Amino acid sequence: MPIGQGFDAHRFAEPGSQRQLWLAGLLWDGIGIEGDSDGDVAAHALIDALLSAAHLGDIGMLFGVGARSAGAGRHGEAMLRDTVAYLREHGFEPDSASVALIGNRPKIGPRRIEAERVLSDAVGCQVSLTATTTDGMGFTGRGEGVAAIATAIVRPR
Amino acid sequence: MPIGQGFDAHRFAEPGSQRQLWLAGLLWDGIGIEGDSDGDVAAHALIDALLSAAHLGDIGMLFGVGARSAGAGRHGEAMLRDTVAYLREHGFEPDSASVALIGNRPKIGPRRIEAERVLSDAVGCQVSLTATTTDGMGFTGRGEGVAAIATAIVRPR
Amino acid sequence: MPIGQGFDAHRFAEPGSQRQLWLAGLLWDGIGIEGDSDGDVAAHALIDALLSAAHLGDIGMLFGVGARSAGAGRHGEAMLRDTVAYLREHGFEPDSASVALIGNRPKIGPRRIEAERVLSDAVGCQVSLTATTTDGMGFTGRGEGVAAIATAIVRPR
Repeated sequence: MPIGQGFDAHRFAEPGSQRQLWLAGLLWDGIGIEGDSDGDVAAHALIDALLSAAHLGDIGMLFGVGARSAGAGRHGEAMLRDTVAYLREHGFEPDSASVALIGNRPKIGPRRIEAERVLSDAVGCQVSLTATTTDGMGFTGRGEGVAAIATAIVRPR
Repeated sequence: MPIGQGFDAHRFAEPGSQRQLWLAGLLWDGIGIEGDSDGDVAAHALIDALLSAAHLGDIGMLFGVGARSAGAGRHGEAMLRDTVAYLREHGFEPDSASVALIGNRPKIGPRRIEAERVLSDAVGCQVSLTATTTDGMGFTGRGEGVAAIATAIVRPR
Repeated sequence: MPIGQGFDAHRFAEPGSQRQLWLAGLLWDGIGIEGDSDGDVAAHALIDALLSAAHLGDIGMLFGVGARSAGAGRHGEAMLRDTVAYLREHGFEPDSASVALIGNRPKIGPRRIEAERVLSDAVGCQVSLTATTTDGMGFTGRGEGVAAIATAIVRPR
């Protein structure tokens, strides 16, 4: 059963920045996040978990790195869809995936089901989302940014 | 094969606090931990991994958050049992689970098998436990608290 | 389906130290890493994930801890091979494994396929490797060290 692990973290933008916060496929109010793409750590960690399960590289290999890369300015949801298309071209189908978000903001709970729907629709299988904090400790606890750990299983098409 | 990812971290209590340290279902001497419940990060990360695998939300949704929540003051082992009962009501059975603990204290090695027995008994399947440190780096390395990353697979009942 | 989770982190050596950097089974130039063994966090996290999936303890139990342990001075690749031999003696075969590396250095991309080949050869199944950074945040973002999260699935032999 091919399994994959993914991780990502991004820094919140300074107050007054023009950056938006896209996370788990949704737009959140009141804060922005840094990144060459939309900085959606849930989507990015999922992409790495899916590519890793299929032994097809990682997000940097598929989309490049930096402001002029293929991922620059793109939404995590669109990148997820591209990733799944790439898996299918190589004979894999996502079977199950899960993301654990780590951070103080945004509060995921009220929109968790909405986020799971967007991610599951993009990936084409059940994607679950959990969210927790680090009790004020570390960079997530100080509110500097948000991190995500993801895992995925794929199967042959 | 439905897979889930979970994470949790809690801060050690100040010396002289009345808080105990419950971790991986066991009581440990010499230090306490903060949290609305017993602060058992191994149990909490497992709960999120199990709920996520079953696509049934997360620990905050099932037990609430804060001092007046259903999880307030409760032991991780009891919360794990409630979680598994909830999974079964929804047609899922835990198949396999694993937790990686990250922190300087307590030293898990001498009680690892005892902890695995308590967790496996609560979850109703094999639960494995590993423990490591971060070489003095980050909040776990500075001894501010302890973290846990968990993964789980469930199957239809 | 027995699943395991592993984690490890090591600190980069001071400039001018005699320490080398072995990571994901490869030797990297320009920096060293601390550790009783070769400090290969990718190999160590994989070892914990494999042992945990087989419910056979963790790296500290199998190799000991400290400068006089069985793992002292040993390469991660050799320890991985010993781990897999130990799993086989107990009736398990690695089925799939994945590691997510977290750190600024070294740049994994150009040598990712080479690293995956070494790790997969040592483990005897597909091992995938992804790599990411933490946007300057935390101990990995400050360049103090490198961390790895791994997951693995094993099957009966």
